[in-house]
Amino acid sequence: MFNEEFQLDAPIRWGMVGGGRGSEIGYSHRAAAQRDRLFTFVAAALDLDAERGRDFGTKLGLAPERCYPDYKTLFTEEAKREDGIQAVSIATPNSTHYEIAKAALEAGLHVICEKPATIHVEDALELKALAEKQNKMLAVMYGYTGFQMVHQAREMVRRGDIGAVRVIQMSFAHGFHNTEIEKNSPGAKWRMNPEVSGPSFIIGDCGTHPFYMAGMITGLKVKSLMCSRQSFIESRAPLEDNAHVVFQFEGGAVGTLWASAINSGSMHQQKVRIVGEKASLEWWDEYPNQLRYEVQGEPVRILERGMGYLHNDDPGVSANRQGGGHAEGFFESWANLYHRYALAIDAYNRNDKAFLESHWYPDIDGGIDGVKMVNACVKSADNGAVWVDYD
Amino acid sequence: MFNEEFQLDAPIRWGMVGGGRGSEIGYSHRAAAQRDRLFTFVAAALDLDAERGRDFGTKLGLAPERCYPDYKTLFTEEAKREDGIQAVSIATPNSTHYEIAKAALEAGLHVICEKPATIHVEDALELKALAEKQNKMLAVMYGYTGFQMVHQAREMVRRGDIGAVRVIQMSFAHGFHNTEIEKNSPGAKWRMNPEVSGPSFIIGDCGTHPFYMAGMITGLKVKSLMCSRQSFIESRAPLEDNAHVVFQFEGGAVGTLWASAINSGSMHQQKVRIVGEKASLEWWDEYPNQLRYEVQGEPVRILERGMGYLHNDDPGVSANRQGGGHAEGFFESWANLYHRYALAIDAYNRNDKAFLESHWYPDIDGGIDGVKMVNACVKSADNGAVWVDYD
Amino acid sequence: MFNEEFQLDAPIRWGMVGGGRGSEIGYSHRAAAQRDRLFTFVAAALDLDAERGRDFGTKLGLAPERCYPDYKTLFTEEAKREDGIQAVSIATPNSTHYEIAKAALEAGLHVICEKPATIHVEDALELKALAEKQNKMLAVMYGYTGFQMVHQAREMVRRGDIGAVRVIQMSFAHGFHNTEIEKNSPGAKWRMNPEVSGPSFIIGDCGTHPFYMAGMITGLKVKSLMCSRQSFIESRAPLEDNAHVVFQFEGGAVGTLWASAINSGSMHQQKVRIVGEKASLEWWDEYPNQLRYEVQGEPVRILERGMGYLHNDDPGVSANRQGGGHAEGFFESWANLYHRYALAIDAYNRNDKAFLESHWYPDIDGGIDGVKMVNACVKSADNGAVWVDYD
Amino acid sequence: MFNEEFQLDAPIRWGMVGGGRGSEIGYSHRAAAQRDRLFTFVAAALDLDAERGRDFGTKLGLAPERCYPDYKTLFTEEAKREDGIQAVSIATPNSTHYEIAKAALEAGLHVICEKPATIHVEDALELKALAEKQNKMLAVMYGYTGFQMVHQAREMVRRGDIGAVRVIQMSFAHGFHNTEIEKNSPGAKWRMNPEVSGPSFIIGDCGTHPFYMAGMITGLKVKSLMCSRQSFIESRAPLEDNAHVVFQFEGGAVGTLWASAINSGSMHQQKVRIVGEKASLEWWDEYPNQLRYEVQGEPVRILERGMGYLHNDDPGVSANRQGGGHAEGFFESWANLYHRYALAIDAYNRNDKAFLESHWYPDIDGGIDGVKMVNACVKSADNGAVWVDYD
Repeated sequence: MFNEEFQLDAPIRWGMVGGGRGSEIGYSHRAAAQRDRLFTFVAAALDLDAERGRDFGTKLGLAPERCYPDYKTLFTEEAKREDGIQAVSIATPNSTHYEIAKAALEAGLHVICEKPATIHVEDALELKALAEKQNKMLAVMYGYTGFQMVHQAREMVRRGDIGAVRVIQMSFAHGFHNTEIEKNSPGAKWRMNPEVSGPSFIIGDCGTHPFYMAGMITGLKVKSLMCSRQSFIESRAPLEDNAHVVFQFEGGAVGTLWASAINSGSMHQQKVRIVGEKASLEWWDEYPNQLRYEVQGEPVRILERGMGYLHNDDPGVSANRQGGGHAEGFFESWANLYHRYALAIDAYNRNDKAFLESHWYPDIDGGIDGVKMVNACVKSADNGAVWVDYD
Repeated sequence: MFNEEFQLDAPIRWGMVGGGRGSEIGYSHRAAAQRDRLFTFVAAALDLDAERGRDFGTKLGLAPERCYPDYKTLFTEEAKREDGIQAVSIATPNSTHYEIAKAALEAGLHVICEKPATIHVEDALELKALAEKQNKMLAVMYGYTGFQMVHQAREMVRRGDIGAVRVIQMSFAHGFHNTEIEKNSPGAKWRMNPEVSGPSFIIGDCGTHPFYMAGMITGLKVKSLMCSRQSFIESRAPLEDNAHVVFQFEGGAVGTLWASAINSGSMHQQKVRIVGEKASLEWWDEYPNQLRYEVQGEPVRILERGMGYLHNDDPGVSANRQGGGHAEGFFESWANLYHRYALAIDAYNRNDKAFLESHWYPDIDGGIDGVKMVNACVKSADNGAVWVDYD
Repeated sequence: MFNEEFQLDAPIRWGMVGGGRGSEIGYSHRAAAQRDRLFTFVAAALDLDAERGRDFGTKLGLAPERCYPDYKTLFTEEAKREDGIQAVSIATPNSTHYEIAKAALEAGLHVICEKPATIHVEDALELKALAEKQNKMLAVMYGYTGFQMVHQAREMVRRGDIGAVRVIQMSFAHGFHNTEIEKNSPGAKWRMNPEVSGPSFIIGDCGTHPFYMAGMITGLKVKSLMCSRQSFIESRAPLEDNAHVVFQFEGGAVGTLWASAINSGSMHQQKVRIVGEKASLEWWDEYPNQLRYEVQGEPVRILERGMGYLHNDDPGVSANRQGGGHAEGFFESWANLYHRYALAIDAYNRNDKAFLESHWYPDIDGGIDGVKMVNACVKSADNGAVWVDYD
Repeated sequence: MFNEEFQLDAPIRWGMVGGGRGSEIGYSHRAAAQRDRLFTFVAAALDLDAERGRDFGTKLGLAPERCYPDYKTLFTEEAKREDGIQAVSIATPNSTHYEIAKAALEAGLHVICEKPATIHVEDALELKALAEKQNKMLAVMYGYTGFQMVHQAREMVRRGDIGAVRVIQMSFAHGFHNTEIEKNSPGAKWRMNPEVSGPSFIIGDCGTHPFYMAGMITGLKVKSLMCSRQSFIESRAPLEDNAHVVFQFEGGAVGTLWASAINSGSMHQQKVRIVGEKASLEWWDEYPNQLRYEVQGEPVRILERGMGYLHNDDPGVSANRQGGGHAEGFFESWANLYHRYALAIDAYNRNDKAFLESHWYPDIDGGIDGVKMVNACVKSADNGAVWVDYD
């Protein structure tokens, strides 16, 4: 069970590079970092456009003077403050990760870097060495690996529930780029540009997710691989919008990865299937609360988050923020409602009746209706399950 | 698209009654209220045990002097402060909602009350009148109605996409109480006690959710109903752990509701199916990102959150915190990871190597592996899709 | 395992009343009866239009003189023959079942009668007494109860796998009559006519199926019931196109049945869910090879036809015509192909090249392609998983 | 709609080689061939053990003298008869297909051959030439291609509903051989023997099915391929029990095939996904009545067999033996019931009361119960939806 009370002596003073206005990934970092009051967002270089970055940062609650024009200034100026940032998240295009992460580590900061860590392997290795030297955390944001059922899968493999791993089938194949949408989408455009994105589009952008997850679950290392890649939208060449990879893992397991941006009609299809001697596990990010456990010769089992039959002594498995049965998205629904409450309260405070008339939230009328329904049910049932008028 | 920048002139100063240590619902209120920086949690009466309430409140970041022993003191003392609370959420057992909500409104507070609003209809009506007199918001926490696809269903009904509504099938039927678990669960026990819970257990506890949602989606009003209820665990009588309700709605529609706590093996089964002249809609809370749209004579369509084909001019539909394809629980995964980052950073700061050795998070090794994989893929593909060694 | 060798000393000489040209149900009877060579179709009164009945019967392989104008003649004339029919299936509108079944039994025939057996209970009881007196089989065609997974459910209940039954949820709710289609469909029209169909449309037509199945699975008897029915297409009154029934079973179990013809967009939704003290079972006729088994506190299990973990000592469970994994519809695919083979052979015999050119079946080109693919795969794999040209 | 009346001038006189006692595939051929009265089973060489073959054949209704000891005798002797066979199905181990098919064609027979057609490509080409010379049909039994929704997919591709094909993902990956089950299963053992099975186990046995189907649906031809294969059960080497194939198709499309016998816990996973420029199609043999149609930017559609929105002018699509909504397996349920009726009738005829007491079939008691239920419902509903006693 998630422990809401847990707190550090003081929250970690935290900043961001990138993730400016309009960035979905920026919002995700901020929402996640501040969720448990373990990080405080105090400074940032959010945007290449310094003015826009400052405007956006202050809207997010930063002091204007801590909205910096670039990451160098951010790191330099914050280093001068006693209350300067201790950690930074990097949410910029791929090709810039290396230099920013390097500068951050050199500035004595803990670093959370969007994936891919870098474009070149040697750069990533250099960052690792630097982090070790600086004794600082260097994390890479593989955002799907926090799901509890992924940790359950990992624990099951560790404990031998499926036997030795034989085959790993991986996919992350969506259809959102089946036409040349980058012509009108700046957020998509840089991902097709090798100078910014690196030598790969969809393998790096999507394929790395299930690849990392499969490694995390099984612990297996790749021995060799073969990749076929294509660009069905010609202007994307030399980068690929579709790729098939075949893997040989050390120890004899094999596998494949399908990474695609042109899988028309698919939402994500991020799936990892681990085939073991005795059983298989399959997880699908579109339905993250479930894990299929298929023991040969037994009925398929659908494992659900939050249940007592899981390997709950693993903290990744038992990190329930809400009981089983509730889909994890539950909190988004609640947050959406509280957002509406805030708007309503503000309108009441401003006596803005026009707003209130067109603004929906679950109000007392629904409450009254619920009480009436319960009471009518009781009356009906306790009189022999007879019909009763509602009003 | 959710607008992260949006802020009130100042966040609403907000408190809670109930929802103390160990309460899942308390955490849900706090997590949701603070998600968008529209509420600040500043005061509370969290627990009947004042000492425990203060201890818990301070752990959650409240000033000790604003952790009050009871709701009366909370309202009285906060009213004396210039920075006193403006709104309060009530997360106490059912039978206390009326008096607390009444006191809160009388104290000039906006109120968010857990469902059911009250035990007696007249009490709820009185609260409504009082809220109107005080010009304050009185909301009831039907927490599932913030899901975007529920709003999509509502919009579709409004626009006539399914024609006139004929049948409404509702259920919330889980299996978690198929044995007498309340013997060992205080959180369950009060729900079986008519003096605290009111005249109904499962109709009130669960049945009201799909009932409210169906009303919200269709706008239909109940004309009459018939209810049959039972307690399969005898000690729960006179309250019920299973109930079937048949409805007649004004205008000719009909429907049923199955509320159950003894539906063995079921997680939630909270489903609402709206049958119209032309088409049906079906939503299931365990898979909240999807909405089934079944036009007679056409293939069933599975609508997904975040997509352009939805009725996105409705703000409830378009309130995307993340793009389509991502399950809403995505944020829980990210928050879990940031939680792990905080622990790692703290351990680095304390130089706690033992902790770091046993503490998993996606670190630079995963980043390096990802870069290696991408580069090996590119090398393989660009040499004719040949096998390449990984290291 | 289904035993293809099993034969009676001689096949049963079998006839039909009703089920003439255009009747889906007639074809189902004939296809099923003749499947295992246990029945031979030798005589019939297929149609109220005697000429059309004779024409159709001879097309189905009957001797012209054994295509009778009506059931009375059928029974009388066949009784005179040494090789006359021994059994008859009745597939006529509901209101005629009684008199035909009675005449058949009086003529010394075994009877398989479409459901409902009769319109009036006393008529059905009379038929039962008559069958007993005549020592003849009197079966009622509840066609879904032959599915193996339904028998598995029955065995599981019998053996106590789910504990005592508490709740039975039943539905058969399709959408094919959400508009007044009977205006153009004679096959639908008589079902709305109380003089032919009896006092109910959809409860009798569809609701009886899951009702019978639930009784077969659980053995429970109804104590009392309550029914609300409506006709959303007004011209169908006094018959109903939608109904909700609430049941009290002897011994304390309860349940509901939803029967509907106006459930827009639904194919069948014939579902039976049996909730027991310990576990629930759920079967859905649209996916008949699977049975959900939900033990409280354990992961949901999906049981599949043909597997060793089933209660295979029950012959209804183990009646596999094909191994597990194959959907039961497998035979339809094969039969469709053999149908195409027959047409192709016939065209070859007639040297009808034009027909052959436009007629698809899996021919030797597909066979060659398959062999080529296998050989190319072997060549590739055995040379180090290298690329090989296909031709 | 399937036309039950359709008949050839005379049924095709048909025989079999192989498919003897205990062969599932043999039963499938016989059940499918005789389904529509287009073939009559009159002669066979069913078994290498001539005596057993004769015994089995006569049980299946063959005249003893037409149960031959081997295929040569079968072809020779039948050729002497005026009523000799016109067509033969070959259901023997792979390595024998060539010689038997050759002999059959030379004997002037139409041939339906189990897949793979042959072991060597040149043999298959020779058979093709021979069939053309003899002007005889030479079909290969790809048994899954008779499903209506597969034909719907083919029509949709043809008509451009998905645009140009880009990617084809194929799999047939079950788990039934995840241990060395062939030690105790003769039916499995020969498939692992290269002398009988040819150079491949699972690619040939299973992989050819989705490969053929994908070719049939799209019309695409393979340009080159790469295959990696393994044997996780060592004794199976040099044959493989797992293989991954990557394809380049002519015209630029790509694809993969996963064939496996060690995919623990999987039933079949025979899936074909066709990704087009605009939309994707996906079919899964375990749920053959459904076809997913995923247009980019629109909700996923689930197409169902038997519906008016399909491309019903294609006879493969519209070959409905039963209306939409009914799963195809419906006929198995009916056939199982008629089987039980036959047993009951036989027992009545023999006056075997002991048998009848333990033999279940839907009898008149179920019929009476159904009538009672309907009448009780009508009584309840017509009196204001009140409770009525059942008896």
